[in-house]
Amino acid sequence: MKSHRLPIVFITVLSLSAHIVSGGKVLVFPIDGSHWVNMNILIEALHAKGHTVDVIRSAGSWYIKESSPHYTSITREQGGGFDEDFLRALTTDLLRIQADGESSWKRLKVEMELMEKGVEMTQMEVDMLTAMLDDHQFMQFLKEAKYDLVLADPVSPIGPILAHYLSLPLVFNVRWTAHSEGHFAIAPSPLSYVPMPLFELTDKMSFLERVANVFFFAFYEFQAQFLIQPRFAALTNKYFGPDVNYFQLIQGADIWLMRVDFVFEFPRPTMPNVVYMGGFQCKPAKPVPQYLEDFVQSSGEHGVIIMSLGTLVSELPKRIVEEMAAAFAQLPQKVIMRYTGEKPSTLGNNTLLVEWLPQNDLLGHPKTRVFVAHGGTNGVQEAIYHGVPILGVPLMFDQPDNLSRMRAKGAAKVVDIFSVDRDGFLHALKEVLHELSFRENMQRLSRLHRDQPMKPLDRALFWIEFVMRHKGAAHLRTESYKMPWYSYHSVDVVMFLLAVTAMFVTASVFGIKFLCSRICKSKQE
Amino acid sequence: MKSHRLPIVFITVLSLSAHIVSGGKVLVFPIDGSHWVNMNILIEALHAKGHTVDVIRSAGSWYIKESSPHYTSITREQGGGFDEDFLRALTTDLLRIQADGESSWKRLKVEMELMEKGVEMTQMEVDMLTAMLDDHQFMQFLKEAKYDLVLADPVSPIGPILAHYLSLPLVFNVRWTAHSEGHFAIAPSPLSYVPMPLFELTDKMSFLERVANVFFFAFYEFQAQFLIQPRFAALTNKYFGPDVNYFQLIQGADIWLMRVDFVFEFPRPTMPNVVYMGGFQCKPAKPVPQYLEDFVQSSGEHGVIIMSLGTLVSELPKRIVEEMAAAFAQLPQKVIMRYTGEKPSTLGNNTLLVEWLPQNDLLGHPKTRVFVAHGGTNGVQEAIYHGVPILGVPLMFDQPDNLSRMRAKGAAKVVDIFSVDRDGFLHALKEVLHELSFRENMQRLSRLHRDQPMKPLDRALFWIEFVMRHKGAAHLRTESYKMPWYSYHSVDVVMFLLAVTAMFVTASVFGIKFLCSRICKSKQE
Repeated sequence: MKSHRLPIVFITVLSLSAHIVSGGKVLVFPIDGSHWVNMNILIEALHAKGHTVDVIRSAGSWYIKESSPHYTSITREQGGGFDEDFLRALTTDLLRIQADGESSWKRLKVEMELMEKGVEMTQMEVDMLTAMLDDHQFMQFLKEAKYDLVLADPVSPIGPILAHYLSLPLVFNVRWTAHSEGHFAIAPSPLSYVPMPLFELTDKMSFLERVANVFFFAFYEFQAQFLIQPRFAALTNKYFGPDVNYFQLIQGADIWLMRVDFVFEFPRPTMPNVVYMGGFQCKPAKPVPQYLEDFVQSSGEHGVIIMSLGTLVSELPKRIVEEMAAAFAQLPQKVIMRYTGEKPSTLGNNTLLVEWLPQNDLLGHPKTRVFVAHGGTNGVQEAIYHGVPILGVPLMFDQPDNLSRMRAKGAAKVVDIFSVDRDGFLHALKEVLHELSFRENMQRLSRLHRDQPMKPLDRALFWIEFVMRHKGAAHLRTESYKMPWYSYHSVDVVMFLLAVTAMFVTASVFGIKFLCSRICKSKQE
Repeated sequence: MKSHRLPIVFITVLSLSAHIVSGGKVLVFPIDGSHWVNMNILIEALHAKGHTVDVIRSAGSWYIKESSPHYTSITREQGGGFDEDFLRALTTDLLRIQADGESSWKRLKVEMELMEKGVEMTQMEVDMLTAMLDDHQFMQFLKEAKYDLVLADPVSPIGPILAHYLSLPLVFNVRWTAHSEGHFAIAPSPLSYVPMPLFELTDKMSFLERVANVFFFAFYEFQAQFLIQPRFAALTNKYFGPDVNYFQLIQGADIWLMRVDFVFEFPRPTMPNVVYMGGFQCKPAKPVPQYLEDFVQSSGEHGVIIMSLGTLVSELPKRIVEEMAAAFAQLPQKVIMRYTGEKPSTLGNNTLLVEWLPQNDLLGHPKTRVFVAHGGTNGVQEAIYHGVPILGVPLMFDQPDNLSRMRAKGAAKVVDIFSVDRDGFLHALKEVLHELSFRENMQRLSRLHRDQPMKPLDRALFWIEFVMRHKGAAHLRTESYKMPWYSYHSVDVVMFLLAVTAMFVTASVFGIKFLCSRICKSKQE
């Protein structure tokens, strides 16, 4: 690793002399799975700019490799987050819950199960953190390393809590925080037009949708205040005293690098320390391997359909795959299907089953017509970048919500993978293939997304280095989160004004009564 | 003008080929005075990029010249805003009101006088607009010119209303809107930490300051809703029908180019279509004329003090100038004082009286120690850019508020010019000269301000051209302003939920009562 660094620093100095931070030291607390894929892009870019990166990982880590040319790993038995076994079990669980849910009643049951799961995971994280903070040798090692900043994914509480412990500036690489959407944690979010995440609501809601939005918000607030916060309270109390609470540590991050932009997201209030880097991982397509190119070219004027359901889910219930393959088989298009499970019996001649595919390069291929996707943020951003309309088959997490955004913008159709049969799926496929509006809308989004004054990745790097140069970004961050809730919402002021008004009215009434009685008296006299 | 354009377009094509808009047409509605100085910078830059600019001005215009190499003017007898006579009379009036005000009671009186003035100006604007919209020949001329966008200063309602009439995208070059701070018009602004403009409050307020902030907000809301809005209602009703209201036309602007940044402003919520270009007019200092350089160099190690009170005010009450000059005379520093009135009798040998000075170049001079300034946004931003601490002598408008921001950041001291004597002024000058923290804080602000991924002017131009390329920026702009207030604030949802709860409670109580009575009855039987 060392041998790589010198010449790269040299190039950077030449091209960006005004902004150079010579050899910063970054400590990273990532999340495993697809989130790591994103974090790794930032890490590679930081390394290319001459910074040293240390990454904390678990021994059982899944995607986060122990050795890399771009970072030095710090492996802990139980400490860098959940390991592969846990995450695989979690997704299987979630798939089952999701496949169950249909009626509102079941939906509520699903939410309850998810809530329980969340609380259980929180407890595991608290235990991990306690073990870490009590490992004095390890903490001493981190202190002596003299990092310039902590780069963390706020899905895990480890980054913010350790950054505070080490008194280091904190930059988030964020899609969600642990217990709510990132934006809700820091920017005022009027529930009338800012939809709560996860519920497929848009920025234009009917009255009943707005009622639901308020209800969901209350539900999550309840969860955060009464189920999550108390579990962290003992921890923050012990290590930081009673004045520091967990949510304040999250809200106190210097910079939030959001993995969305306003082509993807609905317009909404934001804060000066939020930097939008949605699509930062996107890049022009490279040529695909020859066997794929041959297959793609064989589609002729019909073009190809790409199907991929992301990193966490490798196998789907057999029935679903059979139905999808059967629908694909009836199309004149060629289909490239990423799937590692048993080969479906309905697989057509036009469908190529692959264990992995160069998603970005295929999405950028001129013959690609439709992207059949589960709706992870990365895939959706790549589809936007390349202007390929989506047929969405959401599975879990934020996927239904991501896809509902594309649907609202007319760039995607969404089907319920758990209930659709081959005819329904075929019908949806044909719609996205043949109704021009899907393609036109996605290409418009693509034009808007690409028309930025600066590449999203460069913007992200600028702000990470900014935080290193200035040891934070306090001037961009409000400290209003330190106010008690009744002050933040001006409840105390309103109560005061009401009290003053009441006193004034009471005094007036008594005054008038008193005067009247005097007048009456004097008349009687 | 035409002869200039071709080679410039050519250069632009070479350097920015990805983002070029070939020869856009921009219609500008400026505000006279210091606001025009800002607008003209944008116009020059747009012209340099190959765009055609037409500017609407009044025949009696003060700063807005009829002929320019950068724009074509469209002169109307009464139509491009207030003329020189009106503006001069206004500032004299305001100075008198300001000089009067001291006690809270007088302060309230001042506010009332200002409110009356505002209402009067609104009526004049409504009359101007009506005359313009009824001038069919003129409106036809504007329609046929096929502009790509309207660039306007929202201090005047002319820009937004004409943009709507002509169905053109709208970009604001904005410090304030006509009747409130720009941010308050579009971004949620919790009154607990977002100070109302004009009252010298900060983002960290005491309880009583928060009470005052809520009170000021209510006062301005009252003014806007009951004094301003009704005056526009007849106009918007007549030309656009009952569904369009004046404030919505302002809130519907595609891009807000704000003439502040978060080095100047306190951190606060913002919106995706707000672009911060604070300091866009700042540039490195050029050498000053020889006679000034000689004067500056003669100051030796003591350095110089620059004093300038802006474009609108040329003369101050005599007593004030005498006191200031007397204080300057007691310093070892040299002083360059911009003042066009009668020479003060107390003027020292160390003070050079000038009618005009190259403010930016002098602020950037290494010998400059302190900037004595009235606190206009431009001057404050230039002081930040060059890192020169300020002794503030605010006169009117937003000046006290601008300076209070610098004071809160430890980069300025502020004195009340209407009450301070020579000793008080001298004491304040010495403090800013000798207490290192003022200079250190301003230099820190300067470093933060200059450390941006893109120059503010380039960012502004990018977004103006973006709006031309995409015929607006709808994806960055919430349309929540179209909701009724009770929906926007979820009042209807809360009422509904309360009603449901009440019904549920009532039903339960009656149910229990009924059950009890049945049980009692059956027991009795």
